[in-house]
Amino acid sequence: MSEPGDPKPGTVYLVGSGPGDPELLTVKAKRLLERADVVLHDRLPGPAIIDQLPADRCEDVGKRAGGDRTSQPEINERLVELASAGNSVVRLKGGDSFVFGRGGEEAEYLAARDVPFEVVPGVTSATAAPAVAGIPITHRDHASSVSLVTGHEDPDKEESAVDWEALAALGGTIVVLMGVSRLPDYTDALLEAGADPETPVALVERATWPEQRVATGTLETIVAARDEVGIEPPAVTVVGEVAATRDRVLEYLANEPDGEPVEPDTEV
Amino acid sequence: MSEPGDPKPGTVYLVGSGPGDPELLTVKAKRLLERADVVLHDRLPGPAIIDQLPADRCEDVGKRAGGDRTSQPEINERLVELASAGNSVVRLKGGDSFVFGRGGEEAEYLAARDVPFEVVPGVTSATAAPAVAGIPITHRDHASSVSLVTGHEDPDKEESAVDWEALAALGGTIVVLMGVSRLPDYTDALLEAGADPETPVALVERATWPEQRVATGTLETIVAARDEVGIEPPAVTVVGEVAATRDRVLEYLANEPDGEPVEPDTEV
Repeated sequence: MSEPGDPKPGTVYLVGSGPGDPELLTVKAKRLLERADVVLHDRLPGPAIIDQLPADRCEDVGKRAGGDRTSQPEINERLVELASAGNSVVRLKGGDSFVFGRGGEEAEYLAARDVPFEVVPGVTSATAAPAVAGIPITHRDHASSVSLVTGHEDPDKEESAVDWEALAALGGTIVVLMGVSRLPDYTDALLEAGADPETPVALVERATWPEQRVATGTLETIVAARDEVGIEPPAVTVVGEVAATRDRVLEYLANEPDGEPVEPDTEV
Repeated sequence: MSEPGDPKPGTVYLVGSGPGDPELLTVKAKRLLERADVVLHDRLPGPAIIDQLPADRCEDVGKRAGGDRTSQPEINERLVELASAGNSVVRLKGGDSFVFGRGGEEAEYLAARDVPFEVVPGVTSATAAPAVAGIPITHRDHASSVSLVTGHEDPDKEESAVDWEALAALGGTIVVLMGVSRLPDYTDALLEAGADPETPVALVERATWPEQRVATGTLETIVAARDEVGIEPPAVTVVGEVAATRDRVLEYLANEPDGEPVEPDTEV
């Protein structure tokens, strides 16, 4: 029998998981995960959250048995299939579904096939990763705008869709998601567009996970800092004056994991 | 006696409340609010959250008895005072403390006075308000960047700190927080900078509150739409092709309040 708070049969919930700490799930996401008939997820929510999901109600669409990824059209169709059979379905994405999460495409697909859906916003890593590293992405005095872009290019596109020259001209904070491997490309692009080589930059890997690591530097030195700390995906890059805040507050920042300090920042 | 999960004495927690629905608090925010010695808040978290706070442990710093607001320096000093006396202190902000929330200034003040603090990211209205209205702020095909700005200008500044011309050149999604009253100014600025007059725009008032309202239009028509629906602060403005997604999915969007539909969109 249905109880108050139960997700609705035949409905898809597009749920953001936040950056990875299970306590940064929203109360609503937690309730839906506990009660939905089926949860479709990939690996981006991170092990701490995925390991808590009830295995008998979960489908991992991040990879298939053969090691391939399930394609987006296949995921779209599976959502329709499950909901049309009367299930309440959670589509769980890392961060927020509607911030570089393809949730918009899923929403349009569902609506076009008469499937009701609800969007449950999550804490996006674009804001959370800088925050837990002690970096406010806006500041009254020196960051009146913040731009979020992805460093992970669509392999079908011949050239970068991101206009780094316009971003450099805008002059606010730039947050790059999935931007570890292409870091040399876009730091070069920003420098060529006239950005100050001394602009502070921070990389935050696996924000809010026990393995969180941070590297800091400038537009000129951050690639070397990345390599020295050994930063790996997933990570968030912050470019702008605000990135220097971390150094001023680090000693009192209680977000750093207790007891065993994270690998020290590399200042090059 | 202290229990596992209790906030630490002498520590300030900079906590984002999310957009206003109490279920969009993070699990961590909820725990800290339940257990902190003192909660300092203003009115932006919204009545649904504020009314649940334990009155005997709360201080409303959004306004003083005489009707004045508590100034930021006074709030900073009160945080230090309470933490130095051994209290665990939650500083609760609407949305996320580090996205146009002055959390960065509070963090720097605390660190400079040897007060440990922890940042607890929240769901920012910049992403949540568009999302619950059916608008993904990024899209693979037509929004490779999203820029967050504030429409609420510092009265001390003579001219707009936001470079609308550079934003128009960037061409991605623009999300304006606190941008109801200055809507005519920045839609004009974008048009003068060469933005397409047919660019879709949406205004989302009190996102996730029972009173949520939405107005949609284009750069040319949104001011009239705002006035016809009677949109009031707080609201979030979304400018860009993605804003048109709402019309394509609205019929199946289960986020709209049940039973009594919100005031219909005004298409001018």
